[in-house]
Amino acid sequence: MSSILYVIKIGGNIIDDEEKLFSFLKEFSLIKEKKILIHGGGKLATNIAEQLQIPQQIIEGRRVTDTATLKVIAMVYAGFINKNITALLQSNNCNALGLTGADGNLLQAHKRTSKVLSVGEDLGEVIDYGFVGDIDTVNIRLLNNLLEASITPVIAPITHDTKGQLLNTNADTIAQEISKSLTGAYAVTLIYCFEKNGVLENYEDESSVIAEINAASYKDLKEKQIIHSGMIPKLDNAFAALNNGVEKVIIGKAEELSQLISGTSGTRIANEQ
Amino acid sequence: MSSILYVIKIGGNIIDDEEKLFSFLKEFSLIKEKKILIHGGGKLATNIAEQLQIPQQIIEGRRVTDTATLKVIAMVYAGFINKNITALLQSNNCNALGLTGADGNLLQAHKRTSKVLSVGEDLGEVIDYGFVGDIDTVNIRLLNNLLEASITPVIAPITHDTKGQLLNTNADTIAQEISKSLTGAYAVTLIYCFEKNGVLENYEDESSVIAEINAASYKDLKEKQIIHSGMIPKLDNAFAALNNGVEKVIIGKAEELSQLISGTSGTRIANEQ
Repeated sequence: MSSILYVIKIGGNIIDDEEKLFSFLKEFSLIKEKKILIHGGGKLATNIAEQLQIPQQIIEGRRVTDTATLKVIAMVYAGFINKNITALLQSNNCNALGLTGADGNLLQAHKRTSKVLSVGEDLGEVIDYGFVGDIDTVNIRLLNNLLEASITPVIAPITHDTKGQLLNTNADTIAQEISKSLTGAYAVTLIYCFEKNGVLENYEDESSVIAEINAASYKDLKEKQIIHSGMIPKLDNAFAALNNGVEKVIIGKAEELSQLISGTSGTRIANEQ
Repeated sequence: MSSILYVIKIGGNIIDDEEKLFSFLKEFSLIKEKKILIHGGGKLATNIAEQLQIPQQIIEGRRVTDTATLKVIAMVYAGFINKNITALLQSNNCNALGLTGADGNLLQAHKRTSKVLSVGEDLGEVIDYGFVGDIDTVNIRLLNNLLEASITPVIAPITHDTKGQLLNTNADTIAQEISKSLTGAYAVTLIYCFEKNGVLENYEDESSVIAEINAASYKDLKEKQIIHSGMIPKLDNAFAALNNGVEKVIIGKAEELSQLISGTSGTRIANEQ
């Protein structure tokens, strides 16, 4: 039987809250099995961009990553957040090592191609999201090498194109791609931690956690618009992982990490009918 | 015979000059032997601190690293500079991996203790340089593991105290400590790259490079005040390395890296009389 590997993603809300982050990292460090942490961005990048007077352009709800914004992202994600998490994990006896996709060629990506709008008022307009990367390959050998040396990779949401260009990349997608890539060597559990107790039947009621979602119920929940907007890409990532050999996917609250692992909290994503 | 390892340190001036940095990294990538790059800070940290309106306190020519300044240092050194160098090396087929001292517990340090002034007007005043680290240990196993996997470590001048605190640490000293730590496994050559052609007899004359300095001539050059101020800690680092098993130490111009390696440029530091 393959040994267990936890791939755990934390989002911005916990990164922005020092106390919650401390306590999450303490709990994360207690996981005895091999583990990988992937972190998102948080509000700090937006704050720093504002203070540096870098105008932020949002198109269709997505931030455009121009050269100046990419610089802020590299500074905040790979510098401040990644290194603080790494140092805090080290203080909890977890031998963490921070990485971006450029480090050791961990995550090769290509710049997302411009999109020509086919509907709406701006028909035909070309949208360029800037330095945003879509992942092509994961360096499995590097991750295996680190994990075998009892090192815990801590991954910032930045990739590279192998031509010297860093690229801003969605942390949920990175978690999915890394989980899939390691199914040959490990029994992988992927955990998406966010601010809610799990996927909710009623967005405003934290007690309405849906205990399990499978492909059929997902379709149904989308049709009924119970699951919509931001949850859709997260669940698409979850199913993509499950359909490619990841054993378990769990979505839930960062503060309840041990309960997410034990199965007593959060939403379990299942590919059985 | 041990295989050769180059430990190369670049300073701020080359980091601030995009064109020179590109060309240096290209040359660095051509080195066939195992290699480690250690980089300094550059002016960007000062610029960002100014833009973020973080007042910079300088005591006796040294910057005080308070909490806000440390944040900028983590962002600029470990985020922007380290990741750009890493991505550029990757584009030159050099499998670089960026690290701070916190990553994989590479460099354990302790916060420099406050200093009580014993001379001058401010007699008895306590000076606290803030979050500045003096190195205690180098994680040789991690470096060996990376080097054996044909990975080139790229090290930012930041250490940690294993209690969750990042610390600002001099890059020349990191280069010295890392060089010394690897003499058991490799024949180490340490190269300090800076803006001058080498150690100069006459600071204003770039053709006045002193080809070789040994312990006796160093003492003499200091007495004659030909070597003074900033060059003294650099040369002290050089001799400390040589006296602890490093085979060669060379000081010279970053733009002449291949000549520094071949011995046709720069100043060779020698411990023979």
